[in-house]
Amino acid sequence: MVKFSDYSPIPTAWVGPIQIKGEDLNDSVRVPLATYETPLWPSVNRGARVSRQMGGIQVTLHHQNMTRSITVEAPSAREAIRLSHDLQEQTKTLTQVVESTSRFALFKNISTEVVGRLLMIRLSIQTGDASGHNMVTQAAEHLQTYLLNTYPTLRYVSISGNVCVDKKVSAVNGILGRGKHVTAEIIISKEVCKKYLRTTPEALHALNIKKNWVGSTMAGSLRSANAHYANMLLAAYLATGQDAANIVEGSQGMTYTDLVGDALYFSVNLPNLIVGTVGNGKDLPVVQTHLKALGCLEPRETGKNAERLACIIAATVLCGELSLLAAQTNPGELMESHTTLERQKKAQEKKHDYV
Amino acid sequence: MVKFSDYSPIPTAWVGPIQIKGEDLNDSVRVPLATYETPLWPSVNRGARVSRQMGGIQVTLHHQNMTRSITVEAPSAREAIRLSHDLQEQTKTLTQVVESTSRFALFKNISTEVVGRLLMIRLSIQTGDASGHNMVTQAAEHLQTYLLNTYPTLRYVSISGNVCVDKKVSAVNGILGRGKHVTAEIIISKEVCKKYLRTTPEALHALNIKKNWVGSTMAGSLRSANAHYANMLLAAYLATGQDAANIVEGSQGMTYTDLVGDALYFSVNLPNLIVGTVGNGKDLPVVQTHLKALGCLEPRETGKNAERLACIIAATVLCGELSLLAAQTNPGELMESHTTLERQKKAQEKKHDYV
Amino acid sequence: MVKFSDYSPIPTAWVGPIQIKGEDLNDSVRVPLATYETPLWPSVNRGARVSRQMGGIQVTLHHQNMTRSITVEAPSAREAIRLSHDLQEQTKTLTQVVESTSRFALFKNISTEVVGRLLMIRLSIQTGDASGHNMVTQAAEHLQTYLLNTYPTLRYVSISGNVCVDKKVSAVNGILGRGKHVTAEIIISKEVCKKYLRTTPEALHALNIKKNWVGSTMAGSLRSANAHYANMLLAAYLATGQDAANIVEGSQGMTYTDLVGDALYFSVNLPNLIVGTVGNGKDLPVVQTHLKALGCLEPRETGKNAERLACIIAATVLCGELSLLAAQTNPGELMESHTTLERQKKAQEKKHDYV
Amino acid sequence: MVKFSDYSPIPTAWVGPIQIKGEDLNDSVRVPLATYETPLWPSVNRGARVSRQMGGIQVTLHHQNMTRSITVEAPSAREAIRLSHDLQEQTKTLTQVVESTSRFALFKNISTEVVGRLLMIRLSIQTGDASGHNMVTQAAEHLQTYLLNTYPTLRYVSISGNVCVDKKVSAVNGILGRGKHVTAEIIISKEVCKKYLRTTPEALHALNIKKNWVGSTMAGSLRSANAHYANMLLAAYLATGQDAANIVEGSQGMTYTDLVGDALYFSVNLPNLIVGTVGNGKDLPVVQTHLKALGCLEPRETGKNAERLACIIAATVLCGELSLLAAQTNPGELMESHTTLERQKKAQEKKHDYV
Repeated sequence: MVKFSDYSPIPTAWVGPIQIKGEDLNDSVRVPLATYETPLWPSVNRGARVSRQMGGIQVTLHHQNMTRSITVEAPSAREAIRLSHDLQEQTKTLTQVVESTSRFALFKNISTEVVGRLLMIRLSIQTGDASGHNMVTQAAEHLQTYLLNTYPTLRYVSISGNVCVDKKVSAVNGILGRGKHVTAEIIISKEVCKKYLRTTPEALHALNIKKNWVGSTMAGSLRSANAHYANMLLAAYLATGQDAANIVEGSQGMTYTDLVGDALYFSVNLPNLIVGTVGNGKDLPVVQTHLKALGCLEPRETGKNAERLACIIAATVLCGELSLLAAQTNPGELMESHTTLERQKKAQEKKHDYV
Repeated sequence: MVKFSDYSPIPTAWVGPIQIKGEDLNDSVRVPLATYETPLWPSVNRGARVSRQMGGIQVTLHHQNMTRSITVEAPSAREAIRLSHDLQEQTKTLTQVVESTSRFALFKNISTEVVGRLLMIRLSIQTGDASGHNMVTQAAEHLQTYLLNTYPTLRYVSISGNVCVDKKVSAVNGILGRGKHVTAEIIISKEVCKKYLRTTPEALHALNIKKNWVGSTMAGSLRSANAHYANMLLAAYLATGQDAANIVEGSQGMTYTDLVGDALYFSVNLPNLIVGTVGNGKDLPVVQTHLKALGCLEPRETGKNAERLACIIAATVLCGELSLLAAQTNPGELMESHTTLERQKKAQEKKHDYV
Repeated sequence: MVKFSDYSPIPTAWVGPIQIKGEDLNDSVRVPLATYETPLWPSVNRGARVSRQMGGIQVTLHHQNMTRSITVEAPSAREAIRLSHDLQEQTKTLTQVVESTSRFALFKNISTEVVGRLLMIRLSIQTGDASGHNMVTQAAEHLQTYLLNTYPTLRYVSISGNVCVDKKVSAVNGILGRGKHVTAEIIISKEVCKKYLRTTPEALHALNIKKNWVGSTMAGSLRSANAHYANMLLAAYLATGQDAANIVEGSQGMTYTDLVGDALYFSVNLPNLIVGTVGNGKDLPVVQTHLKALGCLEPRETGKNAERLACIIAATVLCGELSLLAAQTNPGELMESHTTLERQKKAQEKKHDYV
Repeated sequence: MVKFSDYSPIPTAWVGPIQIKGEDLNDSVRVPLATYETPLWPSVNRGARVSRQMGGIQVTLHHQNMTRSITVEAPSAREAIRLSHDLQEQTKTLTQVVESTSRFALFKNISTEVVGRLLMIRLSIQTGDASGHNMVTQAAEHLQTYLLNTYPTLRYVSISGNVCVDKKVSAVNGILGRGKHVTAEIIISKEVCKKYLRTTPEALHALNIKKNWVGSTMAGSLRSANAHYANMLLAAYLATGQDAANIVEGSQGMTYTDLVGDALYFSVNLPNLIVGTVGNGKDLPVVQTHLKALGCLEPRETGKNAERLACIIAATVLCGELSLLAAQTNPGELMESHTTLERQKKAQEKKHDYV
């Protein structure tokens, strides 16, 4: 067995507090961000200041699930299709098969794809406070065993058929859901735009269209329209013990803006936040400290700690996205701020503040 | 200014040695991998064992560049198109403008997109041993200033127009290039497949088609056909001080297999490795230790240390991809190994081995 | 009003008979194909010959629906999300609203997307023997009126929000369905491959992987892996009075092959066949003649004529796809056959055979 | 040989005149549109009226090429990569090889992709007044023969490797070009918007963003943002003898709008117009009549007739796109106009006006 002999320390700072309003969450939260790209900190912090000025970022959870797709092979497409119809009638059995694997696993649904003789079954479950990678694999294994036993003409192909889709770009995750789907939104007055973001609602709205929607489309992007969700997700995931490779699907989100009178409507839409407060990586002392400070280790109804975490991360993404877009409305500001920050960091390092 | 008060330690282990053959690289290398998902270590290690059995993984660099796209607005599409043609004639001037910004910046080319009155100019440069995020932004700023001064009818839209494309899914990065494009390949005998991977060339080849190519297509993926590149990239990036948010584009790669007699041809194709050996994050003591051990801080021709790192990471990705695919050819193996590893890790933690 | 003064005659030939086996269809059918690209005819014909040799192409209908997405604007994302949950509970009301618009409209479901404050509602209905473009628009209009009346804070954005998706590339059509989803499959012996297709099962399977799956992925395709579905769809749609602009989504389909012993498993998967036997274009005398000859104007249960037509078209697509792929396994064959056919056509034209 | 015994007559009307301004084109043109979807005629006609009111639609050709990708297999990725570098140095030889196949074929460039051991070579040529399907296939065959003779370790895979990309959705066509890339643009005053389109610049701009850009992204579209380009393309292609299956890539285009003072900037961007005035389908008498009336059979410099046709079609697409979007800004207008038109058509049919 490989033993770890070592660790890689990622510079971590607390930004905020971010003012957040949600159904179960009305709070002012400081957020730890772990990243080598330290200019991210003041950037998110600027957005946090705006959140406090405007009475808070509103966060809403659409839905949540964790998925795994198994692939089996039938003797023909016709039989694969028949079976796919058949399975849609077996909700009760499938629930039993799936939920027997963990007391936290909650069957939601299956969706199927048939291509040639291959039958791909995308299992969707709820996983409590865990992000659920292992829980859903275990559930999928039981489902697979059930299928292979019940339909003897089927042959095993893969416990993961890439329609899941874990840590890879896809359209299906956004359309059918994977992880927690959270939206964060805020209305920002003209004055606050000017004072804290050095821009106007009109300039920011125009930039968002021309860069995030038009630019992304021209780049051949896929169900994605944002400037840099991946940066905030990476930093928040690393600080809270998440599987940060899930920023791949996490980065497929949409920044939607509009003008409301002379104010700016600004929102981030994150269809694939894959986060948990228990499980792999969460037991490390530093991670525990971070999760505790975020209020995500409280004795709550199952799943509510992870929901809180997802909502906090969505608000954090909003802060960072807002700040970068604002900077890009002004020619020269982006590079200038990077250069200044680099200089400050170098000075700080000399004073032995660093790890 | 936000100061970091803290760091998030990511469990790190050395896997390998991986046997690697390249133009400038014939070596047996141990690789540090930083991740919360510790089952990754034995998985990559299994692939490393195969690399040694088969005389090494062959790595080849296709090409490399770093890109940033700026967006400006012309009075009409017609003028934007004219200007885009005009710019293609100005190689000499553009080279001067761009290369004045850093002694490492090497102008490669620009490509343009016009949509409506928007002109998007994707600048491509070589950046020596740096990953080049800042170098290319600085170069793009100079280019932008040149454009706005030279063509007074143009208006600034954005220093980054999302056709770059940084940390976001796209087709353009794969097609026109961003970062280092590296392929790693190996031929694995039937015997080694059986002994070290518990599978056969036929089974692995069939799985690769049905999962990575067919499955990914059905998931609505985009220029991507692999099982889990993101996992290896994240771990290698974190251990070597990279901007790990770049695993988003890094994860858009292709695993291509074939049968060669009764052996297996296995390759990974990574069009977007964005890595460097100098710059942000590289000065941290742990990162320096890791880079040094990898042989990536040697006095070499400019750019060669970063190339070596990219090649090592590509070989590491091959090891992890090979091992997971092999596991998935056998029903039950994936979950079983995860469970075993979890048990071992828990036991290890009790013995206070942990951070 | 613009009056048509004219018509454009498209050269049309009957290919086949194609031998077809389906649940409601066991028949040998000659198919009219209207196209300027006349080399298509012998190509499809070659596939038809194979169908007869092997006892028929098996066709299966997965499911069918017609869709239209309306977009409305809520005061906030939170309210849009609430409303989207609310709507999922109103099956009974929605059924009533939708089915009141036509005696053929059958409510299936709605799916929703929220981005920013926009709520996109994708309505899915069954439309009998009509392709259903107008039927679903009418149903969507009723739904929209119901929504705007019931939820006074909503504002109208568009009766078609581009998540429908009509005549445009998308991932959502394949994943959630639009039109008739049909698979056609056949097993072809080694001998028939050799005699009628001048190729081998191995060569054809290898080409299908390297061209349709690997090649399409490298081209940055999206949920699509085929050689030329669009050709057969266009020709069959024009000959039968369909809205041929729907070949755009129709062309996003998958050719899946495998080896079965020493025979070839060959299948085409068409998720988006948008066809009808009544409605726009179907009343023209020539179209009526074609539909009648296809057996698609019989007194059947509602919807069964259109299903038959979809199945016949799927079998036709298989014939053409098979023939072209077979030709491309041999270097030089494609161009050679095109040249020969051009020569024959020119000769035929001189004999005044032409329109 | 299959002989055509028949033809399918597509109802055709002349719309316009459309006022068009281009580099080689300042004209008022009536355009024949062949379609079963006859409501398209008055819709395009409404846009044509706007073109005349505003002094014309400005059309600009970005660039043009025709492409075919061949796939060969090398012994290893390393050799495939070496060869791909090698080929980039052989411009002179490749030009000779390619241009020997037709006096109209003009070598432009090759681009290459390597995945595993596969080498995909995308050949790009100019093809005069022909759309160039056959010309580029012939050129590709010569190139392939040259390659297989010159590099004996290479093996033939396919004369068309799906990176071409013919009649299939892709990102590569838009990014690297295939066919004629044309933009059409116009500025429409507030008054003309109101009088002829029953809408306002603000309403149309907002709809374009929410439907064509946001909606398409949510649908999982790919390099595409428009309402119904496919409709106009199909009708214009059928009337002028084009291979209408090329509407698949043609439909991947972008409608970009903006506000200019109180007027509307409206543009359509068509990266993949695959049209010609000579070749397959063009010799039919009706097609000749149509092409002649369009001024596309004049004695011009090679290629100029096809360029003119492409520009006219782009202007036609603008007219139809503008009209539909305008209609969709008003709830109820779309269905209402369809219903009215259906009624008129039925009345007209009774009067035996029909084919």
